[in-house]
Amino acid sequence: MTRYSYLGPAGTFAQAALNRLMQAEDVGIPYANVTAALNAVRSGEVESALVPIENSVEGVVARTLDELAIGDPLVITAETTLPVTFVLMAKEFVALDSITRVSSHPHAEAQCRHFIAAQLPHAEVILTSSTAQAASEVAQSDSLQDAAIAAAVAAENYGLKILASEIGDNDDAVTRFVVVSKPGKLPDPTGHDRTSLAVFIGADHAGALLEILTELAVRGVNLTFIQSRPTGRELGHYHFVMDAEGHVVDARVGDALSALKRICEDVRFLGSYPRADRLPPTNHQTTSDANFLTSSHWVEELRNGLAT
Amino acid sequence: MTRYSYLGPAGTFAQAALNRLMQAEDVGIPYANVTAALNAVRSGEVESALVPIENSVEGVVARTLDELAIGDPLVITAETTLPVTFVLMAKEFVALDSITRVSSHPHAEAQCRHFIAAQLPHAEVILTSSTAQAASEVAQSDSLQDAAIAAAVAAENYGLKILASEIGDNDDAVTRFVVVSKPGKLPDPTGHDRTSLAVFIGADHAGALLEILTELAVRGVNLTFIQSRPTGRELGHYHFVMDAEGHVVDARVGDALSALKRICEDVRFLGSYPRADRLPPTNHQTTSDANFLTSSHWVEELRNGLAT
Amino acid sequence: MTRYSYLGPAGTFAQAALNRLMQAEDVGIPYANVTAALNAVRSGEVESALVPIENSVEGVVARTLDELAIGDPLVITAETTLPVTFVLMAKEFVALDSITRVSSHPHAEAQCRHFIAAQLPHAEVILTSSTAQAASEVAQSDSLQDAAIAAAVAAENYGLKILASEIGDNDDAVTRFVVVSKPGKLPDPTGHDRTSLAVFIGADHAGALLEILTELAVRGVNLTFIQSRPTGRELGHYHFVMDAEGHVVDARVGDALSALKRICEDVRFLGSYPRADRLPPTNHQTTSDANFLTSSHWVEELRNGLAT
Amino acid sequence: MTRYSYLGPAGTFAQAALNRLMQAEDVGIPYANVTAALNAVRSGEVESALVPIENSVEGVVARTLDELAIGDPLVITAETTLPVTFVLMAKEFVALDSITRVSSHPHAEAQCRHFIAAQLPHAEVILTSSTAQAASEVAQSDSLQDAAIAAAVAAENYGLKILASEIGDNDDAVTRFVVVSKPGKLPDPTGHDRTSLAVFIGADHAGALLEILTELAVRGVNLTFIQSRPTGRELGHYHFVMDAEGHVVDARVGDALSALKRICEDVRFLGSYPRADRLPPTNHQTTSDANFLTSSHWVEELRNGLAT
Repeated sequence: MTRYSYLGPAGTFAQAALNRLMQAEDVGIPYANVTAALNAVRSGEVESALVPIENSVEGVVARTLDELAIGDPLVITAETTLPVTFVLMAKEFVALDSITRVSSHPHAEAQCRHFIAAQLPHAEVILTSSTAQAASEVAQSDSLQDAAIAAAVAAENYGLKILASEIGDNDDAVTRFVVVSKPGKLPDPTGHDRTSLAVFIGADHAGALLEILTELAVRGVNLTFIQSRPTGRELGHYHFVMDAEGHVVDARVGDALSALKRICEDVRFLGSYPRADRLPPTNHQTTSDANFLTSSHWVEELRNGLAT
Repeated sequence: MTRYSYLGPAGTFAQAALNRLMQAEDVGIPYANVTAALNAVRSGEVESALVPIENSVEGVVARTLDELAIGDPLVITAETTLPVTFVLMAKEFVALDSITRVSSHPHAEAQCRHFIAAQLPHAEVILTSSTAQAASEVAQSDSLQDAAIAAAVAAENYGLKILASEIGDNDDAVTRFVVVSKPGKLPDPTGHDRTSLAVFIGADHAGALLEILTELAVRGVNLTFIQSRPTGRELGHYHFVMDAEGHVVDARVGDALSALKRICEDVRFLGSYPRADRLPPTNHQTTSDANFLTSSHWVEELRNGLAT
Repeated sequence: MTRYSYLGPAGTFAQAALNRLMQAEDVGIPYANVTAALNAVRSGEVESALVPIENSVEGVVARTLDELAIGDPLVITAETTLPVTFVLMAKEFVALDSITRVSSHPHAEAQCRHFIAAQLPHAEVILTSSTAQAASEVAQSDSLQDAAIAAAVAAENYGLKILASEIGDNDDAVTRFVVVSKPGKLPDPTGHDRTSLAVFIGADHAGALLEILTELAVRGVNLTFIQSRPTGRELGHYHFVMDAEGHVVDARVGDALSALKRICEDVRFLGSYPRADRLPPTNHQTTSDANFLTSSHWVEELRNGLAT
Repeated sequence: MTRYSYLGPAGTFAQAALNRLMQAEDVGIPYANVTAALNAVRSGEVESALVPIENSVEGVVARTLDELAIGDPLVITAETTLPVTFVLMAKEFVALDSITRVSSHPHAEAQCRHFIAAQLPHAEVILTSSTAQAASEVAQSDSLQDAAIAAAVAAENYGLKILASEIGDNDDAVTRFVVVSKPGKLPDPTGHDRTSLAVFIGADHAGALLEILTELAVRGVNLTFIQSRPTGRELGHYHFVMDAEGHVVDARVGDALSALKRICEDVRFLGSYPRADRLPPTNHQTTSDANFLTSSHWVEELRNGLAT
């Protein structure tokens, strides 16, 4: 049995994502925010946490990046992406034009604006602190709201009826969630892995990012994500959070990390784990494990006077 | 008179930031979200918009970046940074231990956790969709909440008393806001400018980011910010939003932009404007305007057979 | 009429190369060495000099490179390559096995070793200071030598008979000669040009060569030749002589030279001229003159607030 | 006892260089040219060869570079530099103004032009195929020449008197000679070593040189020499001969060679050996052996889940 903390409340997309990953015997426990969910791993209350890291519409979840980069060390062991599909829910199956008050979280409201304008033109929109809270309030007997816009899982949690599905403006919106654990045995390489890093550069080191990318590029390691983040509290002092193709056990990835460790003020390994999209790394003729092995062997032979 | 749209509601940090910039005769109009505020500029309802772009704790505001990078063209003409200092406010000056319900936006609650734990240990925390909404509810005669955590400007707007100031865990937290207008005459260079860009690369162009940074680095143009963003709706197709030191009228910046335009699928100029921190660009002996002028002149002479 | 100085004596490959280039009314004057031939241009005795710059077997002609890089400025205006085909010559048509003494320059002897071993196994080889001198001595009435190995032109000059042709071990050996003039109007671009440069770096500037190559590479300018040369008299202080694809009037080449002028201690332009092999430059989609023009124009528009 | 082949004839600078290196019991044997001297090592006639590789005035010795890069494998085990100081020698001590014919090799004549013009203005200059040959002819009883310009060692060999020393125009001219042996145990690292390489790139691989230099630069390995050389017989197909700072047993050098082996068509190791000038490599904080060891160890720990 694995206990998972997750970004609550229950009934949000995080719970839906966790449901995809959990085994029957596993347990999911909602926490009020990302930090609390991750601290539950650090303290041993749970084995793993599931937290959002990036949404295709709203962008990265800075709290998650900062906790991983700066907080007590944790590593990502898995990822999953979840389509962000909103549904309209109410206590009973009612006609849409009877709805006078609809509640939701501001992000969800922003992403369902076309549906609201077309189908609920006369409804007042009430903003709440989460989509689950919107659903929860609708479910109350004395609710002032007629309907809520939330994740489908909230309808299930609160016993609501789904009046309309996939009502978001952007059907392709997705959120990437990561499973985070204490450092330990890594997931085995699968051939379609991702390695996450936080790379810290010394102050006033102009050109540092170019050096970092050069070390990756000469070894054929591509990035799939990069973001500069202020390291301290003030704007102006930065580190970079990066996702690279490949697994640290791949020769080219390990070699590149070794180089970053040499040249950067600090490098923190944030995990090697299978990509949700199962895309293999960009292929390079010269950067296979076999190429690295052969060329290292040649240098050993040179050093022993056995080759030229 | 300049009319400004801003990210509302009134009483948030955006209004406080705008108050710093507006002249006496200017007018600020709150809009429900970043897109609406920017559309007000596009449609001509207002001349400029003030929207947040990055918070040192919560990260970038993806909506702002995406609107600038992908929406109908707008350019940044100014920036300002505002310390994110939270205050506790109520209808009357009451003792802190008499407060049983305090409301705030989830981000603000997360950033004042130490104060709440130490000073309001028995208060129930109610989450709202904005700090201004929390203040607004407290101000109502029949409010269920005793106090709100919000920006100081909200106390002013709603006639509330400030019970405690600077109650955030992180006194140095700041938000960077930008003023956005339709393309037109650029702000004059000041010697401490920033140029913002959105750079689009062709699909499957491995190594593209290295090429981009190389073009900047060979001309001595440093970055102060970089983030990859998914271009379409799905994760996997990226562009980069970047802030570079200097103004497009600087020879080195203009030359670098010209190179990016040549090698990238597309480049969108998002404005050259004075930095709020007034920091000058990193100095390079070889990349002054005079250096560029002298060397261009030499090539002209070569072409005319007048030099070697 | 153009007067040409050339590396003498008469009857060497330099004269043969010059014969290819001269018009009927032109005059060629042999000089004792490369410096003397080039000084004849500097002093105005002749309009142009023809000197060897590189041999596929013997390597570069350092004197030529150094005179161009460090001597009073001259520029290359043309190049020609000449197959280095050796012939065996004598006063009369005699049988090869009757030859007991054969003379030649050491380089020629080295390049005809297989022929000598197979066809003249019993002949004594006498070394001379030039192949022309070998032919000249054979032509004398009291010559001690029976035959000479030299360029075909020497047989013509000295009235000798050719006993065997193309006797070199390496039929593909070629020498590249350049025509050098005082700086002035450049040869028109042809679409298959070469630009020669001498690039001087500051002392102790580690990484300078990488910077230089990067400036060329980002503009799609390929090198066809590079050599480090000691700048002063002692080993240890270097400059680089380079041949790049393209003509200085090409936007990418001019832009690259301008960048080198900015970042290097000094750059000397050694000429843009048609390649003897008529190979066009490596094609790059992003580095055509039109690409440079379009992107420069875009930056101008940005600066005037007319584009994004 | 070590037998050395060297570039003859006896009495040239090569013999003088060899005299510096040989122990009392060693033997030096002159060979007619560089190829012959190196073949004597290949065939086992001698253990080592001493051949010139670069002259500060005349440039590189292409034959030596090509033999090492393309001929049957040999490695450099030592180098020495010899000042190229010319002396004027004759059978007897005679007044300079009595000399009517002076002989020398064309290179030596070119390097002593000022002395000849000032001190022997009326002497006829006779060119020979080596400076030793000039001395040898002067030493003959029936010599037509009064004096020779050659290396001091030639006066000793042929019993001539030195009339004037250091008569070269350029007192600082030096030649670098290398000792070449069959591959085998490497010289121990000394802290001031040089590693020589021949690097072959695939045809039409634009940008290959930049890639090569980048692999060296990211590991802090500086070059002290580089030259492109035509690989085949025709101009147009190139490889690069390079001298890098450091010894292949240095982590940074070995790592860089391993990378070149991966990315290049071929790499040939031409030896690691002490520099004659005893200059240490350029210092880099991040490229010591200890830095490489520490960072490799960190990656090992990452792979075992023991670090972040």
